[in-house]
Amino acid sequence: MPIDIRRRKRIGIIGGSRAKEAALQDAYHIGRLIGRRGGILVCGGLGGVMEAASRGAKEAGGLTLGILPGSTSREANPSIDIPVATGLGYTRNSLVALNADALIAVDGEYGTLSEIAYGLIYGRRVIGLGTWDIPGLIKARSPEEAVELVFKED
Amino acid sequence: MPIDIRRRKRIGIIGGSRAKEAALQDAYHIGRLIGRRGGILVCGGLGGVMEAASRGAKEAGGLTLGILPGSTSREANPSIDIPVATGLGYTRNSLVALNADALIAVDGEYGTLSEIAYGLIYGRRVIGLGTWDIPGLIKARSPEEAVELVFKED
Amino acid sequence: MPIDIRRRKRIGIIGGSRAKEAALQDAYHIGRLIGRRGGILVCGGLGGVMEAASRGAKEAGGLTLGILPGSTSREANPSIDIPVATGLGYTRNSLVALNADALIAVDGEYGTLSEIAYGLIYGRRVIGLGTWDIPGLIKARSPEEAVELVFKED
Amino acid sequence: MPIDIRRRKRIGIIGGSRAKEAALQDAYHIGRLIGRRGGILVCGGLGGVMEAASRGAKEAGGLTLGILPGSTSREANPSIDIPVATGLGYTRNSLVALNADALIAVDGEYGTLSEIAYGLIYGRRVIGLGTWDIPGLIKARSPEEAVELVFKED
Repeated sequence: MPIDIRRRKRIGIIGGSRAKEAALQDAYHIGRLIGRRGGILVCGGLGGVMEAASRGAKEAGGLTLGILPGSTSREANPSIDIPVATGLGYTRNSLVALNADALIAVDGEYGTLSEIAYGLIYGRRVIGLGTWDIPGLIKARSPEEAVELVFKED
Repeated sequence: MPIDIRRRKRIGIIGGSRAKEAALQDAYHIGRLIGRRGGILVCGGLGGVMEAASRGAKEAGGLTLGILPGSTSREANPSIDIPVATGLGYTRNSLVALNADALIAVDGEYGTLSEIAYGLIYGRRVIGLGTWDIPGLIKARSPEEAVELVFKED
Repeated sequence: MPIDIRRRKRIGIIGGSRAKEAALQDAYHIGRLIGRRGGILVCGGLGGVMEAASRGAKEAGGLTLGILPGSTSREANPSIDIPVATGLGYTRNSLVALNADALIAVDGEYGTLSEIAYGLIYGRRVIGLGTWDIPGLIKARSPEEAVELVFKED
Repeated sequence: MPIDIRRRKRIGIIGGSRAKEAALQDAYHIGRLIGRRGGILVCGGLGGVMEAASRGAKEAGGLTLGILPGSTSREANPSIDIPVATGLGYTRNSLVALNADALIAVDGEYGTLSEIAYGLIYGRRVIGLGTWDIPGLIKARSPEEAVELVFKED
């Protein structure tokens, strides 16, 4: 285990468990870029955008943390290294935002909206790619730009 | 205690703990109308919009339920009948939405946005008065219309 | 609604959702005594000891608050006036203890043990009737004595 | 990052944030043994027994997961690799038990008692070393025996 795991930047990827192919590809690319830069990918641990981003991060050698709604770690997608079962249901969305140094929202519905809101409540930088248009959220036009904006100012 | 307390409609009022005078007056009027109709007012239990709405509901003979972020019921505003301490911080926003049959958002910032999102996640009717413009939220132009929209279809 | 609802003492009744007849009768009597004294009965809102105590409190004109594990208030037993859905599962046990000024444990298994522990963590007076023998818990020999010990020192 | 991180056994170490020297030494030894066997050590992430066990696990090359009560990962002890901030206060005790395949309690007060209760609620094997005497908890006489009992039946 690398000694510096605690110091690595944690990037939350938020987005729906169902998403269109284009959003899934964006999420996958974002995951790859995060993994390549040595970031820890934090997400809700389930399917769709979460799964695509986790897979990308794993393929690039990254570490993935999944904060799950249910009470068993078995519901985590196969690319989650560290599943954390909460048993809190949708209420766990707050914890996803809390455990990220910055967040990237990709597509997404009301669950993603709640996570964007929590990211902004907690003072996190929130980047958006094809997602809700909320004042305070910074829009990116590509996975590359989204990841660039997240690692900026480090 | 009236025997039908369990059957009364529960209306969540969401909005910031700091708000301008106009929003506070709207919240107070909404509270009064809910109290007059025998609804239970549910809110986050603190100040600003929550306090104004609770005060209105109490003055009209209503019952108020405050779901608090902290771990003591003493932080509830003076118009809360039933304070419920959660110790969950902002994570309790989910529980405010969960315990309302319908929600009215008045003004508000990111906390309110998270509660609007949870209301929509949980399939509640969410009415908005001078608040976030989110697809799925129904806009009202006055406190009267907001309360009308909430009690509609009963 | 009586104006003093906020000042009433809140008594948490903790005990299993399955219990023997003797424990259910004890819980029912405790509920009656609490209702008669104008206390608010707080419990987990489900069956067994919780249901029996709630029924007793209601029959004596008391008010009952049920802090539920699931995400719908419909799971509350019929004697709960104010159901609060949490969606937190067993994690809600902490909130039952947090919202009681004092607790009475009747019978019970591991869930009750967690609530006794939380009561003691939160510095509440915890009375026990035929339940876990934990240092710090005060043993009562009857429902009357249990309720007496709870209202003592007011 | 080893590819099998998801399959490693997760051992929860529960015990007080203040403890006597003997308990701290036991916790440290338990941590070392878990790290040596490739287990992931799960704990509440703070001081005392949690810190000693985490330090032991890290020194033996193990991975440590700290499920924190507060809302910042900075409160984690220095031997926590993966801090998870919950902002849930003592309510997070439930999540510590939920995320362990088995638990070892060392010394401890009411917080530990709540975690033992949750471990048993969730059907986990709970081993105790100089801690609460609760039916269902398996007593060990040494750190070695405690760890042996945890890895048994794999």
